[in-house]
Order: sequence, then C-alpha cells, then structure tokens
Amino acid sequence: MAGAGAGALAGLAACATLACNVAGAVLFLLSQDDERLRRGCAARLGAGGVASQPVEECGDEEALAPDAVLNLELGDPTMYRAFWREVGDCGATVIRGCQGMSYFSDDDAVLCWFLEPELEREVRRLHRIVGNAVVDGYHLVVGTGATQLYQAAMYALSSPARRDQPVPVVSPAPYYSSYPPQTDLLLSDFYRWAGDANTFTGDECIELVCSPNNPDGAIREAVVRSAGAKAIHDLVYYWPQYTPITGPAAHDIMLFSVSKLTGHAGTRLGWALVKDREVARNMVYFVDRSTTGVCKESQMRATEILGVVSDAYEAVPPARASGAVPRLFDFAQRRLEERWRILRATVAATGAFSLPEETSGYCNFAKQTVTACPAFAWLRCEKEGVEDCAELLAGHKIVGSGGEQFGGDARCVRINMLDRDNVFNMLVQRLSSIN
Amino acid sequence: MAGAGAGALAGLAACATLACNVAGAVLFLLSQDDERLRRGCAARLGAGGVASQPVEECGDEEALAPDAVLNLELGDPTMYRAFWREVGDCGATVIRGCQGMSYFSDDDAVLCWFLEPELEREVRRLHRIVGNAVVDGYHLVVGTGATQLYQAAMYALSSPARRDQPVPVVSPAPYYSSYPPQTDLLLSDFYRWAGDANTFTGDECIELVCSPNNPDGAIREAVVRSAGAKAIHDLVYYWPQYTPITGPAAHDIMLFSVSKLTGHAGTRLGWALVKDREVARNMVYFVDRSTTGVCKESQMRATEILGVVSDAYEAVPPARASGAVPRLFDFAQRRLEERWRILRATVAATGAFSLPEETSGYCNFAKQTVTACPAFAWLRCEKEGVEDCAELLAGHKIVGSGGEQFGGDARCVRINMLDRDNVFNMLVQRLSSIN
Repeated sequence: MAGAGAGALAGLAACATLACNVAGAVLFLLSQDDERLRRGCAARLGAGGVASQPVEECGDEEALAPDAVLNLELGDPTMYRAFWREVGDCGATVIRGCQGMSYFSDDDAVLCWFLEPELEREVRRLHRIVGNAVVDGYHLVVGTGATQLYQAAMYALSSPARRDQPVPVVSPAPYYSSYPPQTDLLLSDFYRWAGDANTFTGDECIELVCSPNNPDGAIREAVVRSAGAKAIHDLVYYWPQYTPITGPAAHDIMLFSVSKLTGHAGTRLGWALVKDREVARNMVYFVDRSTTGVCKESQMRATEILGVVSDAYEAVPPARASGAVPRLFDFAQRRLEERWRILRATVAATGAFSLPEETSGYCNFAKQTVTACPAFAWLRCEKEGVEDCAELLAGHKIVGSGGEQFGGDARCVRINMLDRDNVFNMLVQRLSSIN
Repeated sequence: MAGAGAGALAGLAACATLACNVAGAVLFLLSQDDERLRRGCAARLGAGGVASQPVEECGDEEALAPDAVLNLELGDPTMYRAFWREVGDCGATVIRGCQGMSYFSDDDAVLCWFLEPELEREVRRLHRIVGNAVVDGYHLVVGTGATQLYQAAMYALSSPARRDQPVPVVSPAPYYSSYPPQTDLLLSDFYRWAGDANTFTGDECIELVCSPNNPDGAIREAVVRSAGAKAIHDLVYYWPQYTPITGPAAHDIMLFSVSKLTGHAGTRLGWALVKDREVARNMVYFVDRSTTGVCKESQMRATEILGVVSDAYEAVPPARASGAVPRLFDFAQRRLEERWRILRATVAATGAFSLPEETSGYCNFAKQTVTACPAFAWLRCEKEGVEDCAELLAGHKIVGSGGEQFGGDARCVRINMLDRDNVFNMLVQRLSSIN
C-alpha cells in the first residue's frame, strides 16, 4: 500500500483486512436500524461470510526462496496487483445478494442480451480515451475472455454456409501457442487448425492476426491475401503500456480483454468489436449456447475496474496533478520500460541470448515517442550447441514456453514479463549467471 | 424487503440505494484516515463508480401492464429475488480491486487449478447438509454454468479414444430442449446428437439423464443399458424445493448449478462431482481450453451465497427460531407449493389442459413427506382440435416453449414456474379464462 499513504490508514492498514472492514461497515450501518437483520449478519460473519473471502493475495508480495522455480510459462499478469493495491478501496466492487440474478442483462438489447449496458458504456469510453480502436459503428459482444470470443468468431465466420471441408484456420509463425489446441478442441466440422499462415496456399481461410504478437511482440497485419481469407484481429496487447498507439484500429473483428489491459486475468472477461451485424449475431449465439451468456459479476467488476482506469485520465487537473488518482497506463509503462531496460542490458552482457530488436514510435495517447514493451520476452539462445533454450533455462529453474509450441524455433523461449517484481528480479539475476 | 423488517431500515429503506450506502461507508472510513485516497474516491464516485452499478433490479417488483406479454419460455428464476432482498446485506459480496487477479485459484491444486478452495468447501458443505449427493471420494470441477460442464463431460467421455464416428449423445424424450443445439454447436468429431434415448439401438453412447427432468419434472434413471453406454447426470433440479430428497445421488458424473439452486442464473456457475480422476482431469482440460478457467468473481459470489444458504440451516437454535436467518429451501418450497396448488386448481377448473400427475415422497432433508414442485409446468392442451398448445397460449399473450423442441408433443408446452409473483398471478388469471 506504500504508494497510497499506508501509514495514515490506521484501521485499514493492510489490504488483507479491508474486506472485513467493509463488511464491518455494512454491519455498523445495519446495527443502528434493524436488530433482527443484524443478528443474521453477525451469525453469517461469525460463520465465515464476507469476511472469510480469501484476501491473502492482496497482502504483501510473497517472499521467494533463493532456489524457487520461476514459473514464467504462462502470461499471468500479477505485476498489476501492486497497482490495484495502490488504488485501494476505490477499486472495490460491492454486489448485493439480489443483483444480477437474471440470465438477461438488458431487456431492450437487440443483439447481445447478456451484455451489461454499464459495461458497454465503460468499454466504449476507454477506447475513446486511449484511441486504440474505432467503436462507432461497431457492435460489442462480451465473452468469457478473449479465449471464448475467438472461438465465437471462428464459429461466426465458418458456420453459416456448411462446406464439405472445415475452413482452415491459420496464423503466421511464431503464433500464440494456444491457437492450435483451442481451435481443434472439439475437432469441429466448421473449422480446423491448418498451421503457419506464411505457407498457406489455399483460398478460403480464417487468419488469426495477433498484434502486438504473442509471443514476440511484433506489430502485424494479415498476411493471407486471397479473396476467401477472413481475419480475426486479436488485439489484447494493443494498449499503451505495451506498444505505441499509432491510431485507432478498425478491423472487421477485434478482440480485447481485461486480462492484459488491467491485469484481471481471473475475471475472464473480454469483448469483441464487430463491424458486421450478422457476424456479431452469430458470435452472440455461440456464447449463448456455449455458456448461456457471460457471468454478471465479472461484468460488474470490469465496469468498476475500467471506470477507475478511465477516470484517472479524465480527472480534473488538480486531482491529477496531486497524484490522487493512480494511472494504470503510466504505472504499467514505467514498470515495463524499466524491466525491458534491465533485461536488454542483462542479455547484452551475457552474450548467451538475443532478443527481438527494440522498436519505438510516436504514441498518440502518450503524446510522445515511446519504446515498445511487449508482455513477453521472446528470448533466443545464441550459445553454440544449444538446440533447446527452454531446456537450458529449466536447468536454471526458469520455466518458459519452448519456441516449437509457437510453430517456431526451439532455440527460442517465451518468458512472461508481467510477473511480480521479485520474480522478475530473480529472473534477471539467474539469466546474468548464464554465459 | 417486507420480511426483513423494512420499516425499521430508515436510511437503507430501498435495496436500490444500498450499494451506494455501502460505498458511502467505505468512503466514510477512508475520509478519517487518508485525504489523498479520499479525493480519488470522491472523484470516482462522482464520475460513476461503485455507486453507479445497476441496482434497479433489487428494487420493488415492476408492475405489469394488463396486456403485458408473459415470457415464460426460459427458466429465468427471478422468483428468488424476493428471498435475496430479504437476506439483505448479509448476502453482499465485496471484491477488492486487487483480489482474484491471477488465472490461478489454488497453487496447490493438483486437479482443478481454477477452482477457488473456499467455493469447494461451501459446495461440499451444502451437499452434506442437504444430503442430495455423495461428495466424499468425488472430484469437484467448477464450470461456467452446468451448460459448460455438460459439454466438458461429453468431451471427457468421448475424446480420449478417437473413433471413426462421433459418439452418439441421447436423452429420453421429452428432453431438455437445449441439449441438441448445444451438443451440435460445433459439429464435433468426438460426439454428435442422436435423439431420443428410448429409440436408441446402438451400443456405445452418452446418455444425458436429467432428474428431476426438464421439462416435465419426472424422476429419471438411465434408460440405455448397453455395455458401451455412459451417463451424465444433470441434477440441477435435485434440491429440496423441487423434489423430495430421497437419498444422496452417487453417479459417475453429477452436474449442479447455482441458477436453479439459489436463483443466481446470471452468475453462470456450476460444478460437477466426478468419480473418475481421469474424466475429471479431461473436464478440467476442456474448461481450460474453452474459457481458460472460470471467473473468480462468480466463484467468490457463489461462495458467499452458498454460505448464506448453509448457515441458515446450521444456525444456532435461537437465531433459527427467531426467523433472523431466512432459509432458502423453506422460502422456495413454500412459494412453489402454493403456486402448484393454484395452478392445479386452475387447470382442473378450466378443463382445457392437463398436467403431469402430482407426486410426493418422504424427504430426508425436510424430514417429512413433501409434494414435488417442478421448476416448469409441462402443460398439455386437451381441447379438441388444438394441435399446437404454444400457439394457443401465445394468443393469450403467454409465451412458453413448444413441446416439439423437447422431442415431444406439440400439444404440450413448457411454462416457467420460477418467475416473479405478479407474472405467475397473471399467468393463472389468463389460463383460467381459457376453456
């Protein structure tokens, strides 16, 4: 809580105890008014109610044993916890027992009946503030993370006209390692994984365009130019902390998620901006059949969280200047820039590895030239005789994702750059010992 | 709020304003301690933070226009809102900005890494209290509603050994109308919808056993007896408000959800009790690939909600006797019994319809003989010349689901019994005018 003036927060010193205090406050309000209800609450809290929710993860960063295995295989964005601890109570979401009970979010919705109207407003507001995607004229479809939405998009693009063969799904290597197994999870007759887009020779296909790209951070455009190619743009990393915002994206289908935007990976909340109404309608149908819509709690929380992010950039100048409102993109960009600076220096010093070249550009959001800071390091082993970089790192208790999972070279390995400070520091320390 | 002594709740009179009051309380606590943070909060709340979350649905029951269309096609369980209004603040869930951010719920979990340990405890506790399912020796897999879990179960039962043909999926008619389109959503090579289990003649198959059955409330057992048949038991209605609990179910795969248990359909939270470890592991893999786990907010909320339900039945006698702790099953059973009594009397009086015969049995949970009160009325039109009951009802502005969607008779129609009081009352009023 350091950045938020923890010292002064006497009774609320640790985040870990705050949920209890909030519950206590509710109890306090009630106790003045309704003895009967209060008794019920007291019984609840005693038996482990609101107060018992696991809050340990809001506490201080866990210490790392010197020989700890560093699991940097996945992209768990736990770096952002420090930010949300700093935001403190303003980032809390309170959901009453009787809220969000219906399957339906919006009786008047003509398209996405399970989308909370408040969430839609906050999503559109944030894109307008950041300027990373056109929202006017686009339909918004909410999903259980970008994971579900990209499956919904493949379904929408392939299902309307049944074919003899499934539509091939491609992406240029190195591509996100989850694309192949997720695409072929159910061996659908509608679509089927077909590998590297660079070697695709057919006409009809669905191309997954991830930009900035997972794993290597490259800015990408669709590579398949045939008449029958349709693209799904996975833009979950197209936010100012990772890459200069060079302009508002305006593709047919654009996917975003809170995981990589605010670090709320556990919320499983994503959205698609979709140009074509019929495609959006088919995506809604997929999410309906697949999970009967999207959970209301994640939508309420995302509404709150996105609101916090946007407010900080629209705050009136005095509050902004005083630093009263922590600003997400500033926080994350500062931290990632520092990490990348350290990582590049370490890699240069060892001589055992290389990284993709540093890129920079003018960011319309930051109003200055900024360096790209990808969410993953795509580390290549340059040591002679080493064919498997993941294996080499595993020997130093660093677990990354081997390059061959991305349709790439086993001499490359993907390392998560969004873990906690002490994990990153230990990563650098260990890398520097390899030469 | 009547049952909770609304009159005394001066400042908190309406549920609709309580979320604001909770936020206000947080603000109050903060204002004493940290001016800087308080300013941020004030800015947030002013710009539409916690206070702006949609709470209108917690307000009083909306009035119905005399000519309103009654949409009873789906099973939206909005009847339960009245209960959670009565529970009031004890049912609230508070989630801090820094909670639940990781993909992972439990670092130590060997099987279901996205399952919140607190939720697992509450699920097992509730099953033990109610006695409707064996939990010891079962693995628990959480999912985005039973919808996702039954797909995960089909995947787990069909995918390990690839076959020439997809495994047929069957269920005895009348079966839940969503089974066919959900099963064939992606036209999987692993499994494929094959219709009425009663007419199935093959060996290997997956049988979906819904008990009590949607749409007709029947208590069911698997009907396919071949050596290659595997069953998935959909027990989302096997709770004391719907049917006598005759004993703990102990099938290989049992699905439950909060939607029909507590009325939190919007939470999209279900769980599977799975006997075989390998099947559970494959279900976890499906949920991982399909949605990268299950949202933490829905799990935190379900933990809280299930805790409220269980606490009321484990409360110390004085609190219990005083009525301080509203009891879910009592509430729902009372209300459904009353509705079924009225509906049966109405149907008997008109002579135009019939209903499945009333059944009753000794309930081990209630410790008395109780009447089954299904969540749907499976209404059959007995008027001569009427072939389509849904059409007949639509003429009276009652929208139900036509029987042919359930693989059944178009003279039957499924009507939701879990809507709000005023909707149910108007339904009865309109039915009584048909003869």
